Amino acid sequence: MTTVSYTAVELIEIKRDGGVLSEDAIAWLIDAYTAATITDYQMSAMAMAIFLNGLNAGELAAWTEAMLHSGDVMDFGEISAKKVDKHSTGGVGDKISIPLAPLVAACGVVVPMMSGRSLGHTGGTLDKLESIPGFTTALDPVQFRNILREHGLALVGASETIVPADRMLYSLRDATGTVPSIPLISSSIMSKKLAEGIDGLVLDVKTGSGAQMKSREMSRELAETMVGIGKAHGVQTLAFITSMEQPLGKEVGNASEIRESVDVLVGEGPDDVTELTLVFGEAMLEMAGIEGGRATLEKAISTGAAMEKLIDVTVAQGGDPSVLEDTSLLAKARHEATVEAPRAGYVSTCDALAIGTVATRLGAGRLKIGDVIDPGVGITVEAKVGDQVSAGQPLARVRYADEPGWEALREKLASAWEISETAPEAAPLILERVE
Amino acid sequence: MTTVSYTAVELIEIKRDGGVLSEDAIAWLIDAYTAATITDYQMSAMAMAIFLNGLNAGELAAWTEAMLHSGDVMDFGEISAKKVDKHSTGGVGDKISIPLAPLVAACGVVVPMMSGRSLGHTGGTLDKLESIPGFTTALDPVQFRNILREHGLALVGASETIVPADRMLYSLRDATGTVPSIPLISSSIMSKKLAEGIDGLVLDVKTGSGAQMKSREMSRELAETMVGIGKAHGVQTLAFITSMEQPLGKEVGNASEIRESVDVLVGEGPDDVTELTLVFGEAMLEMAGIEGGRATLEKAISTGAAMEKLIDVTVAQGGDPSVLEDTSLLAKARHEATVEAPRAGYVSTCDALAIGTVATRLGAGRLKIGDVIDPGVGITVEAKVGDQVSAGQPLARVRYADEPGWEALREKLASAWEISETAPEAAPLILERVE
Repeated sequence: MTTVSYTAVELIEIKRDGGVLSEDAIAWLIDAYTAATITDYQMSAMAMAIFLNGLNAGELAAWTEAMLHSGDVMDFGEISAKKVDKHSTGGVGDKISIPLAPLVAACGVVVPMMSGRSLGHTGGTLDKLESIPGFTTALDPVQFRNILREHGLALVGASETIVPADRMLYSLRDATGTVPSIPLISSSIMSKKLAEGIDGLVLDVKTGSGAQMKSREMSRELAETMVGIGKAHGVQTLAFITSMEQPLGKEVGNASEIRESVDVLVGEGPDDVTELTLVFGEAMLEMAGIEGGRATLEKAISTGAAMEKLIDVTVAQGGDPSVLEDTSLLAKARHEATVEAPRAGYVSTCDALAIGTVATRLGAGRLKIGDVIDPGVGITVEAKVGDQVSAGQPLARVRYADEPGWEALREKLASAWEISETAPEAAPLILERVE
Repeated sequence: MTTVSYTAVELIEIKRDGGVLSEDAIAWLIDAYTAATITDYQMSAMAMAIFLNGLNAGELAAWTEAMLHSGDVMDFGEISAKKVDKHSTGGVGDKISIPLAPLVAACGVVVPMMSGRSLGHTGGTLDKLESIPGFTTALDPVQFRNILREHGLALVGASETIVPADRMLYSLRDATGTVPSIPLISSSIMSKKLAEGIDGLVLDVKTGSGAQMKSREMSRELAETMVGIGKAHGVQTLAFITSMEQPLGKEVGNASEIRESVDVLVGEGPDDVTELTLVFGEAMLEMAGIEGGRATLEKAISTGAAMEKLIDVTVAQGGDPSVLEDTSLLAKARHEATVEAPRAGYVSTCDALAIGTVATRLGAGRLKIGDVIDPGVGITVEAKVGDQVSAGQPLARVRYADEPGWEALREKLASAWEISETAPEAAPLILERVE
């Protein structure tokens, strides 16, 4: 006797029993959820059923499509150059987007980059950018378009009208133990990226202790799934599976990661951050049909063009460029402490999860939505896997604001390092390429 | 950094990943849900995780115990006679409780019976009783106790303070596709029955088309699970698995099922209803330590003691006994129609689900909480499985209030019967006894 085509319960029952949801049913479900016709408690039951019973390729395509069209989809067709973005599944010290976007933009790639905020033990690009005084990532669609047209680059947060279904579903999943599901993660990421109206996408799927996906198999499955979704939508998509056992670079924190990003753009960045930036940059250039590969990127660094692009976009987005010209002006928390090596040897473990968790608890990230971030808080990792250390040598320098808070975490941070007598085998940073 | 022992998310994750929840964790979860510290959307994710991954025996015992103690637990220790109840998992035309409770009470068993209402295609004892004008099932604890002490019988709905966790969880499950889960059903039923402070319990686990459990295996598992819970709580528990392929008796409706219940109590009930009433009655007498078995029950019928007990409790609960003395005074919907046999033969199917669904839609039951029931609406089943019919002979008489509503359902009701050329094999009513 119902006048609507579906009920939430019947669709939940189909997925609960391992059945397949039709494209039409999925479109109805996402629409009804966005319109609050079906409730959070119904969607959380569905999310758990999907977590446990999965979505097949057809369902996943329909789910992503429905999410994508729950809000505005951008169209930068008037910009003739190729639009290419990069997305990371999130890690500790992962600031790659910050040097990468201006670097490839300086080479002619158009980068409409929508990023996220810190949650849990990982940082967020938007929070890092906001440690540049005045920098705003909350651009309206007109400002976004104008800055992108003028500078070939804009660094923004997703507006309320971009994939609203994901905004709702993500908070719900976070509160209901349904985050680490490959179909739910891949549709969440890909719907937001497809809404940017891009031609190409480079995905950095992190794997290991500091990543959402702890296992290589899960990471590969996620990478393949996202590449499949991208291709099905006519977007060139390439994924790299990269190691997130230890933090990327030396800096974990907001202001300090801006400093390290500037180091990369002036040719003085740590090897791992520089390498990932260049590898992803090469892929983005290729997708945009720009020639020269790594040499083109290196030239943009050596001529100062890449750094100039970061300064230009900072000014365009209201930021004070003086902190980029002199990074010692960036925020620093009042106190500093060190964690020392208990004995001599080689660093065999430098655990990204432990370091990220301590940085978050000190105020560099958010345990829950709404927590306030202190941009000056951070951890500088002074000894990474394979480094030889002597007893008492600093493993990390910690900048913090609150003495008792730090004292409660000192032991946890120290536990991130393991020192062995022999040098560990060198582990690769880039593990796989999935296309 | 949290000050509570658990978070909803961590417990959901344990169950999601197939782990085992501790007794303490389960107690926390049910308490927190009852106190609304954890949300409906978290509990629905947990319910789906339990649906798909189950609860082991220890978890189920803890879950039932936590539900039971979410509210008041009755104690009728001052009544020396044994307190025994009967519960059915619900079927179409299942009015057994109405003749059974006064019958065994007339023989000396004390029956503190808390029943439920119609939802979906099955009827509810409370709704049926309320077709006796004035009969109230909403007794406060003092009234309940007084009537039980005086008459050895009270027929009530669960108060707000009895297992409030189940009240919340049941509505949530109904809206989230998590109803037909053996651990969730068994803990829901058993927590409410254990809260009655009983010494013994007879369970009628329905199986087949008109039952919640369609398969024999699921029914057996549910029966064994509930018997296990009862015994673990020191309550004598016996379950019967009985067929619910076709309606019980001839009457499906509220007033008409009261009429058929009276028929049983005056020795003129249909064979199937009478038989189940006597079998369950024997079991209840045995649990109560009352001798004589079936003969004792038959005597209570033939002497009129059982009928007198129904009249007494009706008066005590505010009902007008004249409708029991003359059942033609019970409500009847204005219109009557018949569904006829399309051809001669033997009834091979008389589908309980189809008949129950049509009765509900005509107004004899509720599609959703809050729907109003029309006590005079009902279906009289004139031909049951094995009956020989001639073409045009009535299969059912339908009492309804709304002409277009009935016309839209006529075909669905007619489809409940299948007529075959040869007589079907006789199928037993009582399939198994589980203790």
